[in-house]
Amino acid sequence: MAIGLGLDVGGTKILACAVTDGGELVAETRVDSPRSPDLLLQTLVEGTDALLSLLPDGPRAVVGVGVGVPSLVTSDGTLYESPNLPALEGLPVHAAFAERLEVLSAATGGAGRWRLVIDNDGTCAVAGEFVFGAARGVTDVLLITLGTGIGGGVVAGGRLLRGARGFAGEVGHIVMDPAGPACHCGRRGCFEQLASGSAFARIARRAAAAGAADRVLELAGGDVEAVRGEHVLEAARDGDRGALALFDELAHNLAVGIANLAEVLDPGVVLVGGGLASAGELLIAPTVADFAVEDRRGRGPHAVPIALAGLGARAGAFGAAALALGLVS
Amino acid sequence: MAIGLGLDVGGTKILACAVTDGGELVAETRVDSPRSPDLLLQTLVEGTDALLSLLPDGPRAVVGVGVGVPSLVTSDGTLYESPNLPALEGLPVHAAFAERLEVLSAATGGAGRWRLVIDNDGTCAVAGEFVFGAARGVTDVLLITLGTGIGGGVVAGGRLLRGARGFAGEVGHIVMDPAGPACHCGRRGCFEQLASGSAFARIARRAAAAGAADRVLELAGGDVEAVRGEHVLEAARDGDRGALALFDELAHNLAVGIANLAEVLDPGVVLVGGGLASAGELLIAPTVADFAVEDRRGRGPHAVPIALAGLGARAGAFGAAALALGLVS
Repeated sequence: MAIGLGLDVGGTKILACAVTDGGELVAETRVDSPRSPDLLLQTLVEGTDALLSLLPDGPRAVVGVGVGVPSLVTSDGTLYESPNLPALEGLPVHAAFAERLEVLSAATGGAGRWRLVIDNDGTCAVAGEFVFGAARGVTDVLLITLGTGIGGGVVAGGRLLRGARGFAGEVGHIVMDPAGPACHCGRRGCFEQLASGSAFARIARRAAAAGAADRVLELAGGDVEAVRGEHVLEAARDGDRGALALFDELAHNLAVGIANLAEVLDPGVVLVGGGLASAGELLIAPTVADFAVEDRRGRGPHAVPIALAGLGARAGAFGAAALALGLVS
Repeated sequence: MAIGLGLDVGGTKILACAVTDGGELVAETRVDSPRSPDLLLQTLVEGTDALLSLLPDGPRAVVGVGVGVPSLVTSDGTLYESPNLPALEGLPVHAAFAERLEVLSAATGGAGRWRLVIDNDGTCAVAGEFVFGAARGVTDVLLITLGTGIGGGVVAGGRLLRGARGFAGEVGHIVMDPAGPACHCGRRGCFEQLASGSAFARIARRAAAAGAADRVLELAGGDVEAVRGEHVLEAARDGDRGALALFDELAHNLAVGIANLAEVLDPGVVLVGGGLASAGELLIAPTVADFAVEDRRGRGPHAVPIALAGLGARAGAFGAAALALGLVS
């Protein structure tokens, strides 16, 4: 049995998991993400040490460390464009870890023994689902994570889709409506502006302001600006029609975006993860129904299944561990 | 030296090329595409025989046959969705060739020696550019062909992007404007409806009708319905402002579509081929300029080069030959 350490560096938390090659979670730690570059590097290295100290049998079975970051990562490990954690941009994560790993590696059976991988968090998440989660055994996988933005990753022909610079799999910035809301990327009507958690909250606030989501507005204390996705979810679970209509609108946008990506990638399965995925079938069922209308292959023998991601908030850390274990590349 | 035979089956013509593993064209034939399934199968097999008869040194160096078809091709060789040559749908091309190839193969050095590959024409075209054309040495390639529709293909990490069913690389059916023109695929505002040759002609007719393209209209004999891309190209070459504005509009749509695809695929180069590519720099220059605005990585150290495809109308046949030679898979 081999163990991989997977760190998922998020905008607010760092989740570290020790995972066996069989997918068993052996230990786990969670700390806040520091905002300063120096503290962030220190926390990453200390977090790894803390995780190692939790291993019942010590670090002997560990074969490497994977680090997922909310950044674009070039193939040489340089970090770019990290809007949710700007401290990461240009941070020498690879060098800092390499130094520490040499020490650890030497102390546990020989220098250079541990694998070190730094990768984009969406790429890590799809790696997690592919190796340990809901996409096991599927060679072509599209993961879409619906959170503040839209992230994701792609497995193509059994390998992670990386692209020429390591920037592939950015699924949130396809322009789907030139008249849509402005996006931080500089364009308009990106998929992310139509189907992310933030987009859903905006859609719900607009409906609440127009008097089309009274129950949702009530749950938000009568304040349109306070309306969040959670209020829509609560109302929809109670069967509120206004809230269900909002899920239908979100699902339509999601289905169009999935159909766009499916044309290019032809995935064997599409997984939906991220915060919004907690809505479960309230989101998936109308998405599947709309996809069957939108996509040329949404129905019939070549229909593409759309399902919930399986590893939840641990997908990124499990994927980083899978990369550290060398189970996917 | 090994030779591969590559057949590119188009809606109107079948082009067959015998190509060496060094990319040299040894022989070439061209016949009309029959519309009936039986005649089409017969023509494909006879076309191969005709090509073989043209080889100066006979068929000894031949190692296989590749056939590119304007259809979706499953990994087991079944042909689907072939709007430009419906006779191909469900046609047992693989079985017909396999039978003939067994005879040829046995007659030229041993049964089972020849490789047989049936593949989508866009996939073949990008294979051709990757192995023999403008994308040699680039591991991640996006080819976009602008003809009646928009086709294309993708190389990812040095391998053809195929997807779960073999349908990947359909780049023309990303919805870019829900208020755009209806597409034959059943959706609205697909990339194909905004930047293909047909779309360009429609844009030009609209401008001509509005009095914004007088020189173009004049070249079309004063008949708005007769306006074609060729008239715009001729006027633009003469420096006509109305015609140049039409190329700017086309280039904008193309740049947005390329930026969408680049987010997902992160290509090392984007090649533009197909009939519209004959416009050369009149199309490429404004596309590059617009892409630098549209794409987050359109400028700076990670800018993606956009260039003309190198093999012209022979890209598909050369790619089919490259597949037959086993130089890409």
